[in-house]
Amino acid sequence: MKILLVFAHPEPRSLNGALRNVAIQELEAQGHEVRVSDLYAERWKSEVDRADFPSLAPDARFVPVAASKKEFEANALTEDVRAEIEKLLWADALILQFPLWWFAMPAILKGWVDRVFAYGFAYGVGEHSDKRWGDRYGEGTLAGKRAMLIVTAGGWEEHYTARGVNGPIDDLLFPINHGILYYPGYEVLPSFVAYRVDRLDDAGFEATAERLRERMRTLATTPPIPYRQQNGGDYLIPSMQLRPGLNDPGAVGFMLHLDGTEVSAARETR
Amino acid sequence: MKILLVFAHPEPRSLNGALRNVAIQELEAQGHEVRVSDLYAERWKSEVDRADFPSLAPDARFVPVAASKKEFEANALTEDVRAEIEKLLWADALILQFPLWWFAMPAILKGWVDRVFAYGFAYGVGEHSDKRWGDRYGEGTLAGKRAMLIVTAGGWEEHYTARGVNGPIDDLLFPINHGILYYPGYEVLPSFVAYRVDRLDDAGFEATAERLRERMRTLATTPPIPYRQQNGGDYLIPSMQLRPGLNDPGAVGFMLHLDGTEVSAARETR
Repeated sequence: MKILLVFAHPEPRSLNGALRNVAIQELEAQGHEVRVSDLYAERWKSEVDRADFPSLAPDARFVPVAASKKEFEANALTEDVRAEIEKLLWADALILQFPLWWFAMPAILKGWVDRVFAYGFAYGVGEHSDKRWGDRYGEGTLAGKRAMLIVTAGGWEEHYTARGVNGPIDDLLFPINHGILYYPGYEVLPSFVAYRVDRLDDAGFEATAERLRERMRTLATTPPIPYRQQNGGDYLIPSMQLRPGLNDPGAVGFMLHLDGTEVSAARETR
Repeated sequence: MKILLVFAHPEPRSLNGALRNVAIQELEAQGHEVRVSDLYAERWKSEVDRADFPSLAPDARFVPVAASKKEFEANALTEDVRAEIEKLLWADALILQFPLWWFAMPAILKGWVDRVFAYGFAYGVGEHSDKRWGDRYGEGTLAGKRAMLIVTAGGWEEHYTARGVNGPIDDLLFPINHGILYYPGYEVLPSFVAYRVDRLDDAGFEATAERLRERMRTLATTPPIPYRQQNGGDYLIPSMQLRPGLNDPGAVGFMLHLDGTEVSAARETR
């Protein structure tokens, strides 16, 4: 496979840097081709602003969605953004690697999403009718490709469990996995998460690295998170609410959007 | 009260810009003092990097948490960050206003959090023992102050309800409300959210503006979201998991961290 790894840590000599090297080495050993977007090294620009849309008149009111649509259609987005779009189209699988800062991506990676996921490319795709509400959530430009997160967290794993004070890690990552990756069509694999990374000794690092190698070996075969396709019949149109009766009665919140059988299974292992 | 409004939209002539003016006008009419951090206008730097920590030696390995701790203790963080910290200490209430991009904050606002919420200021505060796990989640530097979000979304309100395809808005905003605002001590008010903002006509704008004015009039009196205090006895230490038996049996995921009675009430109105 062809794999794009987007890396968002400012220090190459960090645990994140070491895990990135582990991932790349294992992927290449498996015969995959890997490209890396190292956002800090490339001095990625994080803010969506007027400069992203060269054809916007200086005195025109700046409407980000409209500007994105117009510039993407004209293939006139800035060169850095077009290069990332090319890489996403090239890759069979996308890996986003980042430290969890304040329960979300670092700003530089959010800025990569905000700027690269253009209207007409990652959203605003497909027609609306009484049977379809655009190509999104399981359909779209990036359908048929796989994506996953590699995340490091300073906190304890227990604090991120079903009843942990931070909230369950799968729920904290849902806005990314479902809202950013599944939305434009990716099949999203369960995230790789390393905890208490500030306290990792050599044995801890080696165990983490081996766990990551195994995930890299199974990148093509790991079953994706069973999110429901928006246009597959499970949601009412246009309210886009889950049909009454769907999913097991105990499921609420984000977990509703997994197929019912799988929710029960996922719960047992949490 | 003294109020800090952090504004994260690139176009002053936007709906967000108009709503900001509505909020400020109403707050001032109520006798409050308002300061604004207009991140785009001030060309806020979004990325946490070495330049944020002037005393870091050029050849030293950059560990963001350690660098943040050292520089905050020495009062040596960069001037832009120190100015924001001063404003947070000055304000009785914090409002974060932003368009929801990819189900999260724009990068520039995430970068404000990543850079301003320093170690020793917003995290890494307080002692750890068998009774306390640091001052966080309801305690901390910003305890006694209030915070709330003003959010605009392009999508339909139905798509953000309990069974909507995007996930419930309260869950999508939980990582911000609980993880970023409640964490350093704020009492967090329910978010103000405006939907389908790309299609708002004059009457729709006026209704939205009036709804916002009402929230500004009640900023000091609106009951906060009833998150559980970490050190209040509801969580086991050190696992920080909710004590067995707490909360109503149907509650799972993020909603566990609300007081049980309130969860049931919140559900009925959703």
